[in-house]
Amino acid sequence: MEYDGDRQPPPLHPTVAPISYLLGRWRGEGEGQFPTISSFLYGEELQFSHSGKPVIAYSQKTWKLNSGEPMHSESGFWRPKPDGTIEVVIAQSTGIVEVQKGTYNADEQVIKLQSQLVGNASKVKEISRVFELVNGKLSYEVQMSTNTNHLQPHLKAVLNKI
Amino acid sequence: MEYDGDRQPPPLHPTVAPISYLLGRWRGEGEGQFPTISSFLYGEELQFSHSGKPVIAYSQKTWKLNSGEPMHSESGFWRPKPDGTIEVVIAQSTGIVEVQKGTYNADEQVIKLQSQLVGNASKVKEISRVFELVNGKLSYEVQMSTNTNHLQPHLKAVLNKI
Repeated sequence: MEYDGDRQPPPLHPTVAPISYLLGRWRGEGEGQFPTISSFLYGEELQFSHSGKPVIAYSQKTWKLNSGEPMHSESGFWRPKPDGTIEVVIAQSTGIVEVQKGTYNADEQVIKLQSQLVGNASKVKEISRVFELVNGKLSYEVQMSTNTNHLQPHLKAVLNKI
Repeated sequence: MEYDGDRQPPPLHPTVAPISYLLGRWRGEGEGQFPTISSFLYGEELQFSHSGKPVIAYSQKTWKLNSGEPMHSESGFWRPKPDGTIEVVIAQSTGIVEVQKGTYNADEQVIKLQSQLVGNASKVKEISRVFELVNGKLSYEVQMSTNTNHLQPHLKAVLNKI
């Protein structure tokens, strides 16, 4: 016997219910900036799924808007706790790993994360991520600090459920 | 315009060619053990894919053999270098992140990895992973050390391409 999440969606674990609005696929466009690079636009798709356990699997990819050429990708797991805290672990295609910790507000549908660990990075020191659901659209903002620049806006995007 | 790796497989980046035998889906069974737990059997599926960049995306899930109930899952990226070294970054559903570094041998189709970083773990200190392709089957062995037990076998599995 074998589990196949594609054919038989399991019941949602109550621990992930407060952020279950994330589940599914989201697609949209974003903008990147940082003092050390030229600003750029990108297309993006996020996918959130679950297997019935108290964790949501996450994967993401971005592409250049004009050519469709793949850019960044990342994947990991979102682990909310009943007390309103959440930890998110992410592996990036660039070789960076993140341990993010923060809080979710189920009523306001806002999730605020701050890196506790950024591993295998040559320049990046801290990464903060804020996700918000507004009028059915999922928006996020990522801030970053490096060995030369303090924490400041790096990425923002607005995504529609598909 | 938008990238869609499912419909138009891009050309393989030459940097990942030496480990391109990983690409695709693998399914099989494994066995887990450690001095602090009862031995257990599991079903497993691995998926390796690429987008044309010099990195291979990795995702994995396991389930209980008798009930199909989901167990562990993890995801991340494999980043081989032309000099025969490789780094692998993994986020686990348990909340652990790993930065693995090691070597690949393209002729012997063996990849040997040793953790450089195990983050957000309460007990796990080190994880080593060895993958080997033998007669078309992908086998691996994971060793682990914890705050109470030295590095020793934890997981092994044999998987068939599907």
